[in-house]
Amino acid sequence: MPDYKVPIRDMKFAIYDVLDYPAHYASLPGCEDATPDTIDAILPEAARFAEEVAAPLYASGDREGAQWNDGKVSTPSGFKAAYLQFCEDGWASLHHPPELGGMGLPYSLANVCSEMYLSANHAWAMYVALSWGAATTINAHGTEEIKQKFMPMLASGQWCGTMCLTEAHCGSDLGLLRTLATPTNQGSYLINGSKMFISAGDHDLTDNIVHIVLARLPDAPDGVKGISLFVVPKMKVNENGSVGEPNGVSCGSIEHKMGIHGNATCVINFDDAEGWLLGRPHKGMSGMFTFINESRLGVALQALSHIEGSLQTAYHYAMDRIQMRAPERHSPDRPADPIIAHPDVRRMLLTQKAFSEGGRLLTYYCSMLVDIELMSEEQAVRTEAETLLAFLTPVTKAFLSEVAIESTGLGIQVLGGHGYVSEWGQEQHARDARITALYEGTTGIQGLDLLGRKILGTGGAVIEPFVKMVRTFCGENAGSMWADKTESALNEWLKLTEQTIKSSMEDPDQINAAAVDYLMYTGYVVMAWCWAYAAISAERGLNEAHNEKDGDFYRAKLSTARFYFERLYPRTQSLAVTIGSGPGNLTELPEAHFII
Amino acid sequence: MPDYKVPIRDMKFAIYDVLDYPAHYASLPGCEDATPDTIDAILPEAARFAEEVAAPLYASGDREGAQWNDGKVSTPSGFKAAYLQFCEDGWASLHHPPELGGMGLPYSLANVCSEMYLSANHAWAMYVALSWGAATTINAHGTEEIKQKFMPMLASGQWCGTMCLTEAHCGSDLGLLRTLATPTNQGSYLINGSKMFISAGDHDLTDNIVHIVLARLPDAPDGVKGISLFVVPKMKVNENGSVGEPNGVSCGSIEHKMGIHGNATCVINFDDAEGWLLGRPHKGMSGMFTFINESRLGVALQALSHIEGSLQTAYHYAMDRIQMRAPERHSPDRPADPIIAHPDVRRMLLTQKAFSEGGRLLTYYCSMLVDIELMSEEQAVRTEAETLLAFLTPVTKAFLSEVAIESTGLGIQVLGGHGYVSEWGQEQHARDARITALYEGTTGIQGLDLLGRKILGTGGAVIEPFVKMVRTFCGENAGSMWADKTESALNEWLKLTEQTIKSSMEDPDQINAAAVDYLMYTGYVVMAWCWAYAAISAERGLNEAHNEKDGDFYRAKLSTARFYFERLYPRTQSLAVTIGSGPGNLTELPEAHFII
Repeated sequence: MPDYKVPIRDMKFAIYDVLDYPAHYASLPGCEDATPDTIDAILPEAARFAEEVAAPLYASGDREGAQWNDGKVSTPSGFKAAYLQFCEDGWASLHHPPELGGMGLPYSLANVCSEMYLSANHAWAMYVALSWGAATTINAHGTEEIKQKFMPMLASGQWCGTMCLTEAHCGSDLGLLRTLATPTNQGSYLINGSKMFISAGDHDLTDNIVHIVLARLPDAPDGVKGISLFVVPKMKVNENGSVGEPNGVSCGSIEHKMGIHGNATCVINFDDAEGWLLGRPHKGMSGMFTFINESRLGVALQALSHIEGSLQTAYHYAMDRIQMRAPERHSPDRPADPIIAHPDVRRMLLTQKAFSEGGRLLTYYCSMLVDIELMSEEQAVRTEAETLLAFLTPVTKAFLSEVAIESTGLGIQVLGGHGYVSEWGQEQHARDARITALYEGTTGIQGLDLLGRKILGTGGAVIEPFVKMVRTFCGENAGSMWADKTESALNEWLKLTEQTIKSSMEDPDQINAAAVDYLMYTGYVVMAWCWAYAAISAERGLNEAHNEKDGDFYRAKLSTARFYFERLYPRTQSLAVTIGSGPGNLTELPEAHFII
Repeated sequence: MPDYKVPIRDMKFAIYDVLDYPAHYASLPGCEDATPDTIDAILPEAARFAEEVAAPLYASGDREGAQWNDGKVSTPSGFKAAYLQFCEDGWASLHHPPELGGMGLPYSLANVCSEMYLSANHAWAMYVALSWGAATTINAHGTEEIKQKFMPMLASGQWCGTMCLTEAHCGSDLGLLRTLATPTNQGSYLINGSKMFISAGDHDLTDNIVHIVLARLPDAPDGVKGISLFVVPKMKVNENGSVGEPNGVSCGSIEHKMGIHGNATCVINFDDAEGWLLGRPHKGMSGMFTFINESRLGVALQALSHIEGSLQTAYHYAMDRIQMRAPERHSPDRPADPIIAHPDVRRMLLTQKAFSEGGRLLTYYCSMLVDIELMSEEQAVRTEAETLLAFLTPVTKAFLSEVAIESTGLGIQVLGGHGYVSEWGQEQHARDARITALYEGTTGIQGLDLLGRKILGTGGAVIEPFVKMVRTFCGENAGSMWADKTESALNEWLKLTEQTIKSSMEDPDQINAAAVDYLMYTGYVVMAWCWAYAAISAERGLNEAHNEKDGDFYRAKLSTARFYFERLYPRTQSLAVTIGSGPGNLTELPEAHFII
């Protein structure tokens, strides 16, 4: 299996050429330290950790898997040592507030590092990602006392965290959840209930695990309006901050699953476990959405990271493997040509490349918006970023996870039978990537969130900042064929959006019937903007390129942009037809007659 | 995990309502025994075996996997007992010639039974399928002596068979193969070389394994024109037919792979192994194509069988699982609706259903053509069937395997997180189905076979019998909206075909650039014909339906046909655009610049 190499050149293209992180950081209070020097110092160091420490445990972690014995979970060999080194090197605290033990770097920069860890070893990196999410939630909603109790330990990585939402009878529909929180007279709550599908729910990496738990107070209203948010450590915390007695939190079992074997997916039982309320009673869902939204962007990053990993292996294989002749002979002195000479193999590699590099721009852009949401002092700027994120989060999560399934599948296909055997790691990318379309809300749920809750729920207003931003981009680049393509994509999509709003209001079944195809269509439009942005940046880069290698890089961008618009964007045409076909072809068959 | 139930009602719809197997059998010499009584007697018995014997070993066979120890392969617990029962019940001999120990039933009827075994347990059923293929090859190309030596043992199932093509350096490109066959002075050959990716290559089910091996004679020309075909048993065969000494055939290792864990994928080493030539020297590739073509149809059947299995589980889950409200309230007395009430869930189930039932018709139709090819006494009829098969085989194999990947993915998606855990079997369907797009020629290879070898190679003549057949169908059903839809699909496709032939002649890179998208487009057209055929048959059935349940069945067919034409067929629109975009967007990027 070829070694994963962090695509630093392309990351820098996104950060410097396209999105201009330095200007963005300069405009945000608290981001002053994230200078180009800092960025250029951090990236290779994070890359070294990803390549040399996390990546070598990718295949072995899959083979060995997390193990559950007598209520205790052990992570695969090497995971704990890698985690301890990660913390020791200071990576655990990258974007947590300095006053709570973190390094205070922007979220977006931590995100770039995350991509590296995820490409190197998704299952391992999830332990870190869940901790970051838990810390973000505590930081956003905890009292000062709670923050002081948990944040330094999370920021240093000495403790890990999780999010506990799902119960056996409710995944997408959290309104049905039953876990109960009974107030004590010390200001805390006793949590009772059972959660399932808890990623990184238990393990041997740290002495304590801080669970963020959704539960109901005894007087809670039914449904989602009666859910509160709690922080519940696995082990009690002594006055001096040290780890105390067990806190009634246990791991009942772990799942045997398709992939991410190295990360324990747990049933977590709470039996009179002591917890503390985060935020206001019954307002847990809105509190949880801080976590959920960041997690969704994190999942998008996972999806992208697998596309990148799968592309790297497929590309090296395609350069080495000789098989059959291409019309243009590449290796007349050898018995056959390297398979990269065959246009169909290039089609597969370019699909991976377009989604990986385009997905990188999109996720990096979204994480800039998170920076703004967290740090900007201007309310209007924050609000605009929030609205952009409200729109882009479901699209980015679901679109990238769906195209990651496709792209990692192509990564297998390039290798033929060798893609199916474990040795090359391609089938692991496909198995690991598969989860991204499921957890943190399936693609169907993201579609409903986008079309139902966001677009119809705001009468279409949620798309306005995106439309404005793209129109500005097209205006600033008037005359460019890339801007023209983007503008016509935007206009077609706006027409479709209008029609879909209208038909959804006439027949509410259309919302659910159109949701996924509409989301995918939207994804291709957003990706069109990303590739136009990349192409125009590459044209500028090409004019300024100082050496042949830079020129090659920018020309490759332009070829990939062309490929995107000619081979991937046209998928919107079929999607427009199916969206327009209405819900009748889905609803007319009585449910009892699907199988007779 | 819900139990697999053989879809006998739908199989009979294909056999009786649509394809009229009885009339087909009545017209073929040697098929007289395959009366409706026989069919109706065989199907439930084969179903009983599939449901009660093979299916219970599906999950356990995956968990346990085939094991290699000290050069010996053991199959998962229960596989051998199931195999012995299979042979004892007489299933191994279903379609072999009676004079060589078989029951002499038509290939197409054995194929229906195969679907059952494959849905129940793909990995297990492959041991049988490979044996059937080996027997077919020996029967077609062996001398009388060779047939007498091997066929009765294969027909009874006492020995199994394999096909040994791939070597480490050649999979798609068999012209590169190196295994050597040196003549002895007893009329036999000594085989030396190493083969890999040999499915069912070694195991403990039988005392002997009969390998069909591609190798070169010492004086062979280079490339595919210097390949000969040999039969090489694992164990020597004594004069009296009993198993003798080892024959220099050994299993060097087995692969760890994504799925079909219960079937051993072997490295098979031949060290001075004694073998016999099948057919003429250097003509092995054409001999092997008997085997390869049937295997490709067999792979299509595997693909279909996973779609069916995944659909069954997804459907039962969707009926049971309650989660959220649909616009049309289905269960107002329960806290939420069964998820089948949600149009997006129906979209996924209907996609599975359309590809499963449509794929059933297509594979069953192809196997009728194989009957004709094997049994018809009229040369012109045989030639037409051969040409139809030449065209339909790559389409059926590649299209169904690609949509099986999609459909089994949707089967996971319907279950959300539960689809990702092993307990429900959905992720196993996805992992097992994944191989179908790889072995027996990847989708890329099928695309090249269709567009390059078949269509361009015959100047388009290969499609003529298909076009004639569809035109006849449309003419016979003139006035039906289903016939109209099919006719316009055919016409659009013919236009596209003509353009693609033209552009391929102008630029040979277009063949490889367009091949896969063209094959998929063709698949949607072929499937349109299948669904129109089904719909028209269902309309007739509905007129004649004797009870409510039959009426429901036929109405469900019509709803699924509508779904197919409104939600799946429109994918051709995007494919037409990408095919027409030409090879430039694939070839312009220098190979060294894919990753910089």
